[in-house]
Amino acid sequence: MGCIQSFRELCDRPKNTNVRFSLPAVCIVWQTAMIILFGVFIRYDEESDTHWIEHRKANNISSDIENDFYFRYPSFQDVHVMIFVGFGFLMTFLKRYSFGAVGFNFLIAAFGLQWALLMQGWFHSLDYTDGKIKIGVESLINADFCVAGCLIAYGAVLGKVSPVQLMVLTLFGITLFAVEEYIILNLIHARDAGGSMVIHTFGGYYGLSISWMLYRPNLDQSSRLQGSVYHSDVFAMIGTLFLWMFWPSFNSAITDHGDGQHRAAINTYLALASTVLTTVAVSSLFQKHGKLDMVHIQNSTLAGGVAVGTAAEFMLMPYGSLIVGFCCGIISTLGYIYLTPFMEKYLKIQDTCGIHNLHAMPGVIGGIVGAITAAAASESVYGRDGLINTFDFEGAFKNMVPTRQGGHQAAGICVAICFGVGGGILVGCILRLPIWGDAADENCFDDEPYWELPEDEESVPPILQYNNHMRNKDVTESNFSMEQN
Amino acid sequence: MGCIQSFRELCDRPKNTNVRFSLPAVCIVWQTAMIILFGVFIRYDEESDTHWIEHRKANNISSDIENDFYFRYPSFQDVHVMIFVGFGFLMTFLKRYSFGAVGFNFLIAAFGLQWALLMQGWFHSLDYTDGKIKIGVESLINADFCVAGCLIAYGAVLGKVSPVQLMVLTLFGITLFAVEEYIILNLIHARDAGGSMVIHTFGGYYGLSISWMLYRPNLDQSSRLQGSVYHSDVFAMIGTLFLWMFWPSFNSAITDHGDGQHRAAINTYLALASTVLTTVAVSSLFQKHGKLDMVHIQNSTLAGGVAVGTAAEFMLMPYGSLIVGFCCGIISTLGYIYLTPFMEKYLKIQDTCGIHNLHAMPGVIGGIVGAITAAAASESVYGRDGLINTFDFEGAFKNMVPTRQGGHQAAGICVAICFGVGGGILVGCILRLPIWGDAADENCFDDEPYWELPEDEESVPPILQYNNHMRNKDVTESNFSMEQN
Amino acid sequence: MGCIQSFRELCDRPKNTNVRFSLPAVCIVWQTAMIILFGVFIRYDEESDTHWIEHRKANNISSDIENDFYFRYPSFQDVHVMIFVGFGFLMTFLKRYSFGAVGFNFLIAAFGLQWALLMQGWFHSLDYTDGKIKIGVESLINADFCVAGCLIAYGAVLGKVSPVQLMVLTLFGITLFAVEEYIILNLIHARDAGGSMVIHTFGGYYGLSISWMLYRPNLDQSSRLQGSVYHSDVFAMIGTLFLWMFWPSFNSAITDHGDGQHRAAINTYLALASTVLTTVAVSSLFQKHGKLDMVHIQNSTLAGGVAVGTAAEFMLMPYGSLIVGFCCGIISTLGYIYLTPFMEKYLKIQDTCGIHNLHAMPGVIGGIVGAITAAAASESVYGRDGLINTFDFEGAFKNMVPTRQGGHQAAGICVAICFGVGGGILVGCILRLPIWGDAADENCFDDEPYWELPEDEESVPPILQYNNHMRNKDVTESNFSMEQN
Repeated sequence: MGCIQSFRELCDRPKNTNVRFSLPAVCIVWQTAMIILFGVFIRYDEESDTHWIEHRKANNISSDIENDFYFRYPSFQDVHVMIFVGFGFLMTFLKRYSFGAVGFNFLIAAFGLQWALLMQGWFHSLDYTDGKIKIGVESLINADFCVAGCLIAYGAVLGKVSPVQLMVLTLFGITLFAVEEYIILNLIHARDAGGSMVIHTFGGYYGLSISWMLYRPNLDQSSRLQGSVYHSDVFAMIGTLFLWMFWPSFNSAITDHGDGQHRAAINTYLALASTVLTTVAVSSLFQKHGKLDMVHIQNSTLAGGVAVGTAAEFMLMPYGSLIVGFCCGIISTLGYIYLTPFMEKYLKIQDTCGIHNLHAMPGVIGGIVGAITAAAASESVYGRDGLINTFDFEGAFKNMVPTRQGGHQAAGICVAICFGVGGGILVGCILRLPIWGDAADENCFDDEPYWELPEDEESVPPILQYNNHMRNKDVTESNFSMEQN
Repeated sequence: MGCIQSFRELCDRPKNTNVRFSLPAVCIVWQTAMIILFGVFIRYDEESDTHWIEHRKANNISSDIENDFYFRYPSFQDVHVMIFVGFGFLMTFLKRYSFGAVGFNFLIAAFGLQWALLMQGWFHSLDYTDGKIKIGVESLINADFCVAGCLIAYGAVLGKVSPVQLMVLTLFGITLFAVEEYIILNLIHARDAGGSMVIHTFGGYYGLSISWMLYRPNLDQSSRLQGSVYHSDVFAMIGTLFLWMFWPSFNSAITDHGDGQHRAAINTYLALASTVLTTVAVSSLFQKHGKLDMVHIQNSTLAGGVAVGTAAEFMLMPYGSLIVGFCCGIISTLGYIYLTPFMEKYLKIQDTCGIHNLHAMPGVIGGIVGAITAAAASESVYGRDGLINTFDFEGAFKNMVPTRQGGHQAAGICVAICFGVGGGILVGCILRLPIWGDAADENCFDDEPYWELPEDEESVPPILQYNNHMRNKDVTESNFSMEQN
Repeated sequence: MGCIQSFRELCDRPKNTNVRFSLPAVCIVWQTAMIILFGVFIRYDEESDTHWIEHRKANNISSDIENDFYFRYPSFQDVHVMIFVGFGFLMTFLKRYSFGAVGFNFLIAAFGLQWALLMQGWFHSLDYTDGKIKIGVESLINADFCVAGCLIAYGAVLGKVSPVQLMVLTLFGITLFAVEEYIILNLIHARDAGGSMVIHTFGGYYGLSISWMLYRPNLDQSSRLQGSVYHSDVFAMIGTLFLWMFWPSFNSAITDHGDGQHRAAINTYLALASTVLTTVAVSSLFQKHGKLDMVHIQNSTLAGGVAVGTAAEFMLMPYGSLIVGFCCGIISTLGYIYLTPFMEKYLKIQDTCGIHNLHAMPGVIGGIVGAITAAAASESVYGRDGLINTFDFEGAFKNMVPTRQGGHQAAGICVAICFGVGGGILVGCILRLPIWGDAADENCFDDEPYWELPEDEESVPPILQYNNHMRNKDVTESNFSMEQN
């Protein structure tokens, strides 16, 4: 803790938000590194290579339509929309941080997916015959998934960090993610189709730990900007809805061809529908006068999708999905009402977007639901082939049984939490260094330090000299009459 | 009418918009009911069940790609976007009802799709061997379609009802829809791929009848809010465009595999393109100075998609689609200019979004176009197999002929109108009860009664004390100079 | 040049922006012409016709899933979103031209795609046995592509032309496009999957030439409106992101089934990711205080997708895609910083959206990259069948070799530039005629001449008489206190 103390002292120096050299340097150097590493390591896989036609003949594949592209590309595009529009716009709710929300989300996702292709490639799809990573549409989906973990973490520190810090957060986040994913999916052999554990639990605790390390005691000096305006809330609903609608694609994107993708989409669709109703119920019940709070509608309605992530490909049953969504809507909304203020006050964790309620808690719930569902799987429900297919009881795991699989799933949750918390504290330490150009406490939640801002909207009407009849130009008229005073 | 009179008296009591208990109660009770009913009735169908692998072998299906998921999931996602973003954002045009538009749309769609899965399941996909409803991706699309009927109805009463009323409207709307759909599609054996009759005609008249029952004589007291502002009109264009772009998917989502989906998409694409031009023409021609009206661009441009719904899967021919779109653009725009004010003044029907022009009329036209196209079908154009496939002349209807099919189509229109008007009057009666928490006439079109609103945008600049150079801060400066007075 | 001089004199007459007769006349007449021409020429192709079932049997096609619809429809819908939401919202950045941006984009795209189906049909898919054009989903994609060329041109003249002028621009643009495309793809036998040459180079120079012909010396009189406000920049990001996300679909939409589509999507995905980082780097480096400029983020991040258009289906290799994106991000952003002001000042080309930096330059680069990649193709990399498939070395071109193909690619660039510049000058002459209803220099970038505008947002708060507690109503209060003065 002495280490942390000395960092705190370093940080007492006046803040300088000028990133004119650090940001370009980081972008150019890292992008150049990506080009070199891609040149050394990354090639097309047999389904995206011009040799596909020979591969088809050799493997007796009757039609081009059986190329994995046609199984997964529509889901990939939906996931892509979630990453860039979904996460980006969900964070535009702050009145003066919309540029940062959508712009930095764009930047770190674009960097992260390249680094993810490499990291995940080394762990999952390295071809030992030639030492190359072979990529196809499934790699792109996995890269987007990997990026999602870091974007979740961004939600916790939204408005309080510089773009350079975000790039560092992403570099380490992707790296940790790939290792954690390898341990959970390959070594432990847990299943996690929609990433409740791998993506949401990890990403959530990673972000919260970083936010804890970067605690700003005087953040209330920015409180005038830590809220929404009418139109910024509508923008945020664009993010919410695209996340909500495409979540079935997210959870089904990399599941088994055929019934696996089909079932995952249905389960997610139902869980999300159920969440909306309980979110509305709790939001109204706990508010004076029964008014709904946009924060809950924008966020908690998505908790069901997170919580059904692991079990989406299992025989969770339609009513099971509804139950998961039902509970998560309640828990997530109560989290926003009680837990977020508690965490800020007593645990010193400032969680701008409330990712603890939207990702971390529902992610853990999702992991538990997955463990229970896996442990309860039986040949009578799944069929013999179905059980093997769904849980991948093949190769080294061909003697695995469902109850034991349940234990492995539970172990997966623990690994995700450990990597999230541990990695977050480590990266938080690094981000406390006073070299990253973050803003002072009184300039948080403000686009001004990092963006050229247009003249303000309010300045438009007095200048306009329309030759037409605009009625009710009260503000304008008042200004004119004032000048006559 | 005495009944209506006594209701009117009840409604004279002062309005109380506090829904703190009624809204949570409705949401929790209904969602719980859904869980129980899903537990009793709903299971995966053979294509989303883990037994798919056995089903594949038994039915000699060569590849996973022939799972219905891959035929319909991309269309399903497009429809999903139309329901949540399309309808939701289309209604954000009001200056202070964007939260209600997009938020309540979200709420009732999420509830409606669950109830629709049950209602449609009982009528269409109940497996009599085990008494279960088997759902797959086509069920999800149909549930979204069913919800669309209620969202159309919401358009007529937008800004004038409470969320509890909307939940009741949806509960009855879905129920009526499923019955009406069963009569039209199964008993009458009409074809209605894109739901011109089943969805748009029914939904339109259902909403209009409810609006007529809920007539508010003093609605002009809210007239200051019954209009748009610049940015709310841009938000509404998001809804318009996503509806417009994805309408080909809507009309082709549940048509026959192969040429059926292909042709429905082409016809809809063309009809919509044609509608845009005539909408612009009429909007400009009937406005002083030839200026375009955003209301027309946002709504009438979609009429072609509605009107081609029934006939989209038939051999309407590309030029036929253009003609349908051409006419509907004109009729719908003229409807906004002349019919909506007429209906409000003389028929006491207050139609906030003009659904009569966008859904009801074009829906009826679509039904008629479908009837004519079906009656004119011939083996020389369709081919023998094509005729049987397209009109489903199989089983009990294997002796059906096209001319007779035309008559059945026409009967379908009548059923849709009757269910819409009758159901709307019935549900309108229920919604007049003074227990639902709707707002007084002077508080309509306002998010304030049901939503926690953020501080207003106008309050931002005077507080901001940027250390930078914002030019032209006229409003701000005027305030300061005023204080010095 | 005397010709231009006399046009200039004609244009000195006072401007009349009333399009009440010209706009409806153009829309109705042209739409009627479309109906007649479609009636004469356009029919369904064998995959969207009811005879598909017979075609399937005759050609031994085992499943409906092999209908081209399932190969291309998801990509088509993504392209459709790019055309209407992508291009439309990208141009909403101007503070008072959002209606025109998104509305006129809608109008001309809806007209253009019909005319494109005819023009491209005559050149590419005329069935000589019956003189009909047979359309399917690939025709729809090509029509959308064709429209993209005109929408790019719209970017150069945004805010300075009337809707009638835009319709004329589109009519000629589509016509020129179809001829140019036929020459490049069929006669020269260049490959251009994503249209770097055919769409972007042509569209860019077409728009720039028109803008040069329509030079407005006193445009600075509208400078108060030639900028963004905070929320209009966020709207524009919707356009940017949908273009960015769906560009892989754009470049892969009409490539070969199987590996062709797969590889094109991967290459584009990577090029775009790379572009984001260099755009951010250059934007920050060349701005005082290192602040990012929204104009660059909105536009230059897309340059990589343009530049990889031609080579996307080739074996460009993942690192090759990153390099192309890397360079284009830098070049495009520098273009916005240095070239756009230079062109306006010295070349008299006023390029509202900077299409030279986003489309024209990257398009030419894309053509060059394509030529080099094609010339460098070898059987060792592509495989024998792969080489033939990828470059279509069949029929009349079966003796073609890669190096020669590279030359043909280069010839394609020249044709695209010539058609763009030549066509633009010609159409620009026509558009200078003083009959089209364009606005005077001081009324540019303003929706007021062509749209019924809502009352202004600023007028809302003083009217609202909420019975609740809105804090910080500074503006309102100041107005009231002022009145008391």
